[in-house]
Amino acid sequence: MTRAVSGRLSIVGLGPGAAAMRTPQADAVLAEATDFIGYGPYLDRVAARPDQVKHASDNREELDRARHALRLAAAGRRVAVVSSGDAGVFAMASAVFEAIEHGEPAWRKLEVEVVPGISAMMAVAARVGAPLGADFCAISLSDNLKPWAVVLRRLRAVAEAGFVIALYNPLSTARPWQLGAAFELLREVLAAETPVIFATAASRSEERIDVTTLDAADPARADMRTLVMIGSAATRVIEREGAAPLVYSLRRVSA
Amino acid sequence: MTRAVSGRLSIVGLGPGAAAMRTPQADAVLAEATDFIGYGPYLDRVAARPDQVKHASDNREELDRARHALRLAAAGRRVAVVSSGDAGVFAMASAVFEAIEHGEPAWRKLEVEVVPGISAMMAVAARVGAPLGADFCAISLSDNLKPWAVVLRRLRAVAEAGFVIALYNPLSTARPWQLGAAFELLREVLAAETPVIFATAASRSEERIDVTTLDAADPARADMRTLVMIGSAATRVIEREGAAPLVYSLRRVSA
Repeated sequence: MTRAVSGRLSIVGLGPGAAAMRTPQADAVLAEATDFIGYGPYLDRVAARPDQVKHASDNREELDRARHALRLAAAGRRVAVVSSGDAGVFAMASAVFEAIEHGEPAWRKLEVEVVPGISAMMAVAARVGAPLGADFCAISLSDNLKPWAVVLRRLRAVAEAGFVIALYNPLSTARPWQLGAAFELLREVLAAETPVIFATAASRSEERIDVTTLDAADPARADMRTLVMIGSAATRVIEREGAAPLVYSLRRVSA
Repeated sequence: MTRAVSGRLSIVGLGPGAAAMRTPQADAVLAEATDFIGYGPYLDRVAARPDQVKHASDNREELDRARHALRLAAAGRRVAVVSSGDAGVFAMASAVFEAIEHGEPAWRKLEVEVVPGISAMMAVAARVGAPLGADFCAISLSDNLKPWAVVLRRLRAVAEAGFVIALYNPLSTARPWQLGAAFELLREVLAAETPVIFATAASRSEERIDVTTLDAADPARADMRTLVMIGSAATRVIEREGAAPLVYSLRRVSA
């Protein structure tokens, strides 16, 4: 190896929570890191050795956090930026690359890698059956970074076109009404009995997953940690005696 | 444990290929299985013990394969149906639930679980940066199970609405023209310089990933194992000296 000792930045998806759903690749990168950066509750899921440093931050200011990570890596540290689920899905990876594009020229020469994880949407889907078994999409319902009109236009487009929809960031204390408004719009387009899944903390001990219908879906069931999934006309519910229903989407579409 | 000895059906996502990207949960389920069912090349990625039986099949007839798995589980075997990537994304899980819904009543009482894996789209995204960092969708380009007009309508809807698009099953020897027709439609909606990613065998030794633009995208670059990703207006390419470009999608959308 002729490479000089130098920093590295890894953006790591921890998966939905259960240790058995974190990949060996992620574990190896975490073991090699000198510094961990992330939102506090995600950092809590990393068992750091005494020689490893945790830099906790709140869940906003992603660009500041990304720049902090890049400065540490540029100084020779081996930095792991950790996200829940997959690091590339409504998580830190996009913010890191945005910081690279608009930041120090030296940052483009850093060794940067993204380590994928089991995304929340796929963990939730697996717990209820196969709702993502047909064409699907993922939308962040947050209007912090995009106009609400864009969110509504996208929701209508995919609902009318028959996609299963995974809603990330459905609401927060600062954004309490968005999920209700989304359900209102979707009720104009989709049948009342369209399956809706509310999933909180999938794969963790406090997991709570409810399957309901679009006309009965109550926004108050969700909080900022909830993933909401809305079926399409192809989504089916199989009722079972003594067990939770199974939800899946048919691959076949009739003309 | 008062549970009688009985069969179990696990639908397992093996991830994109690299062993380090398969979860410990998937490894544990594979170790407990008595029987493996799947498309030959996926079964080749499972190291079976002498007491474990592999049932290979071709890549069509998914419902037949699902019924075979259900019959074995109903007979008391511990069956693992294996898929590449995530088992719930254009893979075997949907077919298994379809077989359950329309099959033997006893099949509804079987213990069935889905074990998620790193999906191809997220593995590819991680290799190039964070193209799925904004609203995105996944579409199967196969018209074996849905009319081609539905595929085109969906493509137009998501392209116009600003989604990043992951195309699964872009073409095969039996469906040679679909990807070209998709590019033609997308060129009517999206800018010529929209980034397009062709990714084959992500994470495996024969990995090949190319980043190009929509106007230069050549359908002949793809085969049945290729995932094609088409950016949105928010997708950026960061050129780097001596390294592959980085591709990511901005979280921010202007009004």
